[in-house]
Amino acid sequence: MLGMFRTQSSLTRADVMEQTGLSRSTVNQRLDALLAAGLVVPSGEGTPTGGRPASRFTFNRSRGVLLVADIGATGMRTALCDLRGTVCHESERTIDVADGPQSVLTAAQEMFAALLRTAGRTPAEVYGVGIDVPGPVDFGTGQVVSPPIMSGWDRYDIPGWFAAHYDCPVLVDKDVNAMAFGEQRTVHPDVPHLLMVKAGTGVGAGLILDGHVHRGADGAAGDIGHIPVHVADADDEPVCRCGNTGCVEAYAGGWALVRDLRAAGLDVTTVDDAVTLIRTGNVTAVRLARRAGRILGGAIADSVSLFNPRVVVVTGQLVRIEEQLFAGIREMVYKRSLPLATRNLQIVPTRLEARAGLVGLALLLADGIFAPARVEQLMLAG
Amino acid sequence: MLGMFRTQSSLTRADVMEQTGLSRSTVNQRLDALLAAGLVVPSGEGTPTGGRPASRFTFNRSRGVLLVADIGATGMRTALCDLRGTVCHESERTIDVADGPQSVLTAAQEMFAALLRTAGRTPAEVYGVGIDVPGPVDFGTGQVVSPPIMSGWDRYDIPGWFAAHYDCPVLVDKDVNAMAFGEQRTVHPDVPHLLMVKAGTGVGAGLILDGHVHRGADGAAGDIGHIPVHVADADDEPVCRCGNTGCVEAYAGGWALVRDLRAAGLDVTTVDDAVTLIRTGNVTAVRLARRAGRILGGAIADSVSLFNPRVVVVTGQLVRIEEQLFAGIREMVYKRSLPLATRNLQIVPTRLEARAGLVGLALLLADGIFAPARVEQLMLAG
Repeated sequence: MLGMFRTQSSLTRADVMEQTGLSRSTVNQRLDALLAAGLVVPSGEGTPTGGRPASRFTFNRSRGVLLVADIGATGMRTALCDLRGTVCHESERTIDVADGPQSVLTAAQEMFAALLRTAGRTPAEVYGVGIDVPGPVDFGTGQVVSPPIMSGWDRYDIPGWFAAHYDCPVLVDKDVNAMAFGEQRTVHPDVPHLLMVKAGTGVGAGLILDGHVHRGADGAAGDIGHIPVHVADADDEPVCRCGNTGCVEAYAGGWALVRDLRAAGLDVTTVDDAVTLIRTGNVTAVRLARRAGRILGGAIADSVSLFNPRVVVVTGQLVRIEEQLFAGIREMVYKRSLPLATRNLQIVPTRLEARAGLVGLALLLADGIFAPARVEQLMLAG
Repeated sequence: MLGMFRTQSSLTRADVMEQTGLSRSTVNQRLDALLAAGLVVPSGEGTPTGGRPASRFTFNRSRGVLLVADIGATGMRTALCDLRGTVCHESERTIDVADGPQSVLTAAQEMFAALLRTAGRTPAEVYGVGIDVPGPVDFGTGQVVSPPIMSGWDRYDIPGWFAAHYDCPVLVDKDVNAMAFGEQRTVHPDVPHLLMVKAGTGVGAGLILDGHVHRGADGAAGDIGHIPVHVADADDEPVCRCGNTGCVEAYAGGWALVRDLRAAGLDVTTVDDAVTLIRTGNVTAVRLARRAGRILGGAIADSVSLFNPRVVVVTGQLVRIEEQLFAGIREMVYKRSLPLATRNLQIVPTRLEARAGLVGLALLLADGIFAPARVEQLMLAG
């Protein structure tokens, strides 16, 4: 029933009865519990007559706060959000995810504490903590599992670490799942099937199916970066960070572009250097960028063939070389996937850009906390 | 509310109120409509006292019948089912799908008419018709779209053809979707994410995600057979039936195996010949079968990386060469997919075998017909 209040501005008892078909006594009982928990409040828009109580009720988005941290390979964004998942205060800083969980989570907690002070809130008012990371997550336990680039994080108990600071649920997810959800819910709300591809230092994907994040049986879904590819003009298959050879990422990831540009004698150190060089029009750099686009496009074509989304959103640092990248992607997708799957397909760059993870994580967390089973727990506690 | 009766043997009015939380008057109103439509009947198991009506009610699975036809490239199976989707009478015959829709659908209709006579039923008692075909289907319109092997079927209005015979919904789906649903619902009911791969004359896949068939935005999902692969020992990429080169199916489909065995001077004409030869242990045939297994395995590994299913079911004629095929499939999947995705993965042959499509189609049709929106139509009509 809380779901109705979360999606509609205000409701009367009669509205709830009409929309649910529930009996008056059931509606009264559940609404009283939500009022007692402070999750629903009189909206003040009603027309109370005489001494009767207010007739309209609304979701109390300020009853508590959510804290979220979008952890990347080299940077972290954190936010304090209301219970609808709307970002209220936000901060960011540089990190190195390979410093390990103690260091990175301590930094996140410092940022959370600062955000709570800014908002004049206490840890007791935190209804949920959400963390996303650039690696595979066993969603059920919140553990990072065999992450290629997060040394020291394997099987680390992230929810357990935050339990020392907050008495609330902790959601841990893969970064690109949060990005996909953020982009779908805010930019493409009418598109049930969406594929988000992150082309940054590494390559990954998030799948939205029927409006929900598809994590698969173990949370491993969306592993597009380690699909093997064959490239006719490559002498040897390059070794990937995952230990295999010839992965999509080993050709088209930012780290692989940097490797190839350096091998060609060009002076680049970071993925941003590579992007800047490609944007200057350097012939070698542009050729490699187009190749990366075609290789990414091959993997996206496989995904389109298997999953038939309506929209593919591309994000990550490489999206800044849109012209070269998208030409290659489109070429491969339209060449390889069924006409039925591509006739209405859109391939577009991210609109939320670097904030997609943070926005999506807050919305995922709000949905997760207010799932029916959770609400009962909140009401018992509240 | 009908859904409760479909999944539970019998219910009282009080059971329905308790399980739904609906008011007594709403329950009475909806139950009366279901009784009037004949979809729910007194179960006779109640304890009526005096002149009061029966207190327990049950789904009337015999209120009407469902007719389903599983159309393959070279054969067709049809069945008459009760409204739970249980097969009651069944028949099969040889066809050539390339004879086109008029010929094949006329054959299906003859078989349906014979099944109705056998069961002592009339066309007016048919609540739904379900058809599956070996090609891509635009699920919304029931049209086959650009099918590689179904010449003459492109955009053919299958539901329109049956409208001349039956006044009921007509569901058209891709064969492997029906197979996947049948296998999941009857053999793996506790597995929400399942991938079904058909390795027959062609290669295709059906995806069950969260217990539902995932058809994608246009019904094109599961197109695993036309993912491009690279094979180191192939001189030139073989041309596929779809017009592209180097597709999975162009190496590992039954038709490609026949082509390669003949090129090696072996006397085979059909896919069954090829399977028989491989099972004799002929060295060349076994080598080609193992290669087909690895190529299928590469495509299945891509699917496992993207979707992370718990179970992969393999079906189609080639499943009869289980030893060689599964060795190759397992080798590639465990080599290429994330440990997180493979640690609990099962790769198994079909248990329903050639009946998977028929069984799944009947269950899909029953679910489709008794979806809430449809039930209202039935009640208005009934």
